[in-house]
Amino acid sequence: MKTIVVDMMGSDHGTAATIEGIKLFLKRNDDVKLILVGNPEELAPLQAVGEIVASSEIVPMEAGAMEVIRMKKSSMLVAINTMIERNADAIVSAGSTGGFLSAATLKLKLIEGVERAALMSPFPTAIRGKKAVVLDIGANNENNPTQIVQFAKMGSIFAKKIYGLELPKVFLLSNGSEEKKGSPELKEAHQLLKAEAYPGFMGNVEAREALNGVADVIVSGGFAGNIFLKGCEGIFVLMNNLIKTAFKRNIFTKIGYLLSKGGFDDLKTSLNYKTYGGAMLLGVNGVVVKAHGSSDGFSFSYALEVALKMARADVVNLIKEGLNDASGQ
Amino acid sequence: MKTIVVDMMGSDHGTAATIEGIKLFLKRNDDVKLILVGNPEELAPLQAVGEIVASSEIVPMEAGAMEVIRMKKSSMLVAINTMIERNADAIVSAGSTGGFLSAATLKLKLIEGVERAALMSPFPTAIRGKKAVVLDIGANNENNPTQIVQFAKMGSIFAKKIYGLELPKVFLLSNGSEEKKGSPELKEAHQLLKAEAYPGFMGNVEAREALNGVADVIVSGGFAGNIFLKGCEGIFVLMNNLIKTAFKRNIFTKIGYLLSKGGFDDLKTSLNYKTYGGAMLLGVNGVVVKAHGSSDGFSFSYALEVALKMARADVVNLIKEGLNDASGQ
Repeated sequence: MKTIVVDMMGSDHGTAATIEGIKLFLKRNDDVKLILVGNPEELAPLQAVGEIVASSEIVPMEAGAMEVIRMKKSSMLVAINTMIERNADAIVSAGSTGGFLSAATLKLKLIEGVERAALMSPFPTAIRGKKAVVLDIGANNENNPTQIVQFAKMGSIFAKKIYGLELPKVFLLSNGSEEKKGSPELKEAHQLLKAEAYPGFMGNVEAREALNGVADVIVSGGFAGNIFLKGCEGIFVLMNNLIKTAFKRNIFTKIGYLLSKGGFDDLKTSLNYKTYGGAMLLGVNGVVVKAHGSSDGFSFSYALEVALKMARADVVNLIKEGLNDASGQ
Repeated sequence: MKTIVVDMMGSDHGTAATIEGIKLFLKRNDDVKLILVGNPEELAPLQAVGEIVASSEIVPMEAGAMEVIRMKKSSMLVAINTMIERNADAIVSAGSTGGFLSAATLKLKLIEGVERAALMSPFPTAIRGKKAVVLDIGANNENNPTQIVQFAKMGSIFAKKIYGLELPKVFLLSNGSEEKKGSPELKEAHQLLKAEAYPGFMGNVEAREALNGVADVIVSGGFAGNIFLKGCEGIFVLMNNLIKTAFKRNIFTKIGYLLSKGGFDDLKTSLNYKTYGGAMLLGVNGVVVKAHGSSDGFSFSYALEVALKMARADVVNLIKEGLNDASGQ
């Protein structure tokens, strides 16, 4: 049975969201042990379904690693320490991204041979129901070619095991599809992957084409990856607002909305990041899932889902082996 | 009177688009001299409105600078050379981006003191009718802090003179709004702009917030800027397709479309890149405007419009002075 430690206090919506998330998750899953960290009074309704570990502080949303490490009574740090002490398989938090990732990396430590951990998020693509994973979306500010190659391999292992793809198509996110395009470190990463004929490596993809449904794994240094993720989110929000305005224009457009609502609900569902379960930190000794800070119960339950899937698929050990195999050791 | 040299052959749609563009442009503007480079037979209908310079070749869409320089009879190279020989104020081409930018930079040369030219494009923002300019969107693969600072200043000068803003708000595109966020070169650029208290410099902006209407000038190294531009375009296309699908779902959604069409035509207009006039190369001795390869007449006419505005505002000399002033020389 897999054990998941959950920081119950990190969400913007407090325990209302995380408690509902736990309940939804348990409706879909059994055979899993939950260790729930947070305010025991608030978590009392969950006594029957998981072990409750008390914490008395909450890490602020903008906290960095050092602040988390100093807040010894915070739900986030207690959760990380509990994971280590109890040898749990996974941890989920909706708290401060930077703080959680850095503290988890510091405490859990990098997998042997991994130079840098990477934050990965699933993205919707032009093909209905098909996701692509993008990494690193911001765990790092700069990366060298070896690190980028490791990101490619970790992403490929994830896509293979969690999405069940036989041979995930791996692309480097670049400013052109040609081999010679890219930042200096990306160009070198390209040559390294090509030289070892890494299975599924397809070359470069432009940001415009990245989500057209061909790529399964889209690899970038953390800085450009973050710009890609946030740029996409920004346009998504911008267009959603414009769609709302378009429908509100006059009485005809309002009736138009009522008639076409079905289609647009569909559109919303297919782009709904809430079913993506947040982002995963790859490269550390343990499954680390960062739920969105603004997670509701539904969204938080999917973060737990991804954590359980990754624990069951033994993604951490697969990365350990995969990186060593592929590098010929 | 300003003189604009036009490469009439570079568009994907051939002279049909560029000839229509010239006609539309001339309906809105007079007091401008046009030198039209291309196949004299195709351009015959324009004899009355501009001087025609013959060329017999067309640069392929994927051509690089060296290929352009070698194609001495190409409309693109003849246009660039004509601009220099005739001391014209501006050049417009819809041909190969890489080839045009590099060849124009090589031939026209960088403005004294400018380390690298930058490609800049206007973007729509969340505020109706308000544009922001983003640079560099891909003239460079890597940039140092000094170059990024120069991009900020060139963008600011453009926004001031062409959009008529008193004090454009300038932001660095980063992975967080905090001062310490960013790639190493971006962080240093931030410190340089802060140290000289560059007017209008507002700090960092995340890609998600970049187009919310606050920023007038969004500054990035060419690699990340290209990822931002193309990522935004990709999501725009993806969502447009999803909107189409949503409306095509069934008879009700189809009627809904007919009723709400007015609102969506509005949405399309406000996001229509065709009115943006393509991208501008800043930092070279002359106004260089790159129209979209897929420009139609309407879109091409706006590229000419931007070129004329930039020539009239004397943007090149303003950049020359602005860079020197602001650096305290």
